[in-house]
Amino acid sequence: MEQIKIILASKSPRRRELIELMGLKCEIMPSDAEEDNNQKIKLVKLSESLSLLKAQDVFDKTSGNRVVIGSDTLVCVNGKYLGKPKNREEGFKMLKSLSGNTHKVITSLCVIIEKDGEVKTYNTHDISKVTFLKLSDETINNYLDCGEYQDKAGAYAIQGRSGMFIKNINGSFASVMGLPTHILYEILKKENLII
Amino acid sequence: MEQIKIILASKSPRRRELIELMGLKCEIMPSDAEEDNNQKIKLVKLSESLSLLKAQDVFDKTSGNRVVIGSDTLVCVNGKYLGKPKNREEGFKMLKSLSGNTHKVITSLCVIIEKDGEVKTYNTHDISKVTFLKLSDETINNYLDCGEYQDKAGAYAIQGRSGMFIKNINGSFASVMGLPTHILYEILKKENLII
Repeated sequence: MEQIKIILASKSPRRRELIELMGLKCEIMPSDAEEDNNQKIKLVKLSESLSLLKAQDVFDKTSGNRVVIGSDTLVCVNGKYLGKPKNREEGFKMLKSLSGNTHKVITSLCVIIEKDGEVKTYNTHDISKVTFLKLSDETINNYLDCGEYQDKAGAYAIQGRSGMFIKNINGSFASVMGLPTHILYEILKKENLII
Repeated sequence: MEQIKIILASKSPRRRELIELMGLKCEIMPSDAEEDNNQKIKLVKLSESLSLLKAQDVFDKTSGNRVVIGSDTLVCVNGKYLGKPKNREEGFKMLKSLSGNTHKVITSLCVIIEKDGEVKTYNTHDISKVTFLKLSDETINNYLDCGEYQDKAGAYAIQGRSGMFIKNINGSFASVMGLPTHILYEILKKENLII
């Protein structure tokens, strides 16, 4: 197994946590790439492009042998895309639309690796389906009170308190949390960068 | 919403964590009920009975208005039941049998509630399917080195480092972690003990 510097092009503490859970150390370097969510592009392509933008931005600002990891998560319900809620009211609407419903979580991953002058780019995605229990307005409001919805795509956190509202997940827990670690693992394994 | 004492009949830190994530406070009181895993009984019935035994044991030792929660997790692969590995060698064998395979996780829940002299018992289960990536012997040995496999049914922890080996989960993440919080939530909601 080779040792190489790993840079996570994200400021998400959840993504960092997931990488550390893999037994890896990483540097954090948030990307300046704009999250310009043009709805006209297909969501999967959009998400892959966003993860590529983030990784490429950080890759271009760094040098030497390194792995740069970019990721992006989109929530999609009834054909509508949900980003991060701007305020509590929007958070309420998002959770209302998830209540009693199954939604998709699209998580993209971009890994750019430079090893001895050679550069390789992996850009892929993972889709999970998440089914929520039916939630009353009172329950949603009580959940919003705890503040967890802030800065979360779809206004919830699968690894947090809202976990109890989730009846079923079909896909990868880590992907819904923000980083498809099983895919990252396979890429790093192929590149002989993890055991 | 009523206030009532909640007692968790388990010493599992994961179950406690999941209850705290629900925004609830609980007392811990491990059960003395023997985990006598008679393979002749059907696994689901066995798991439900074990959770009932644990909750009943603690319920009988306590008094007053209270909720006692017992739970049990079994892992089942190729029709074979996997408990907690006794040693590293058994852990290796378990992970080898999970590698590249889909297994079932049966998690049972027993909730005994006493409110003003009236006692109600809920006893149910949840089944999730978990698919592992194909793992090399080297990868399994490296994972065993980190010690996470100890005291875990099936020798892995979905919320831990082995999360990266999980390609897919179809079911509840919390159930695989050890407690079906979505079911517990619905019971407490019905009993007006949570918002």
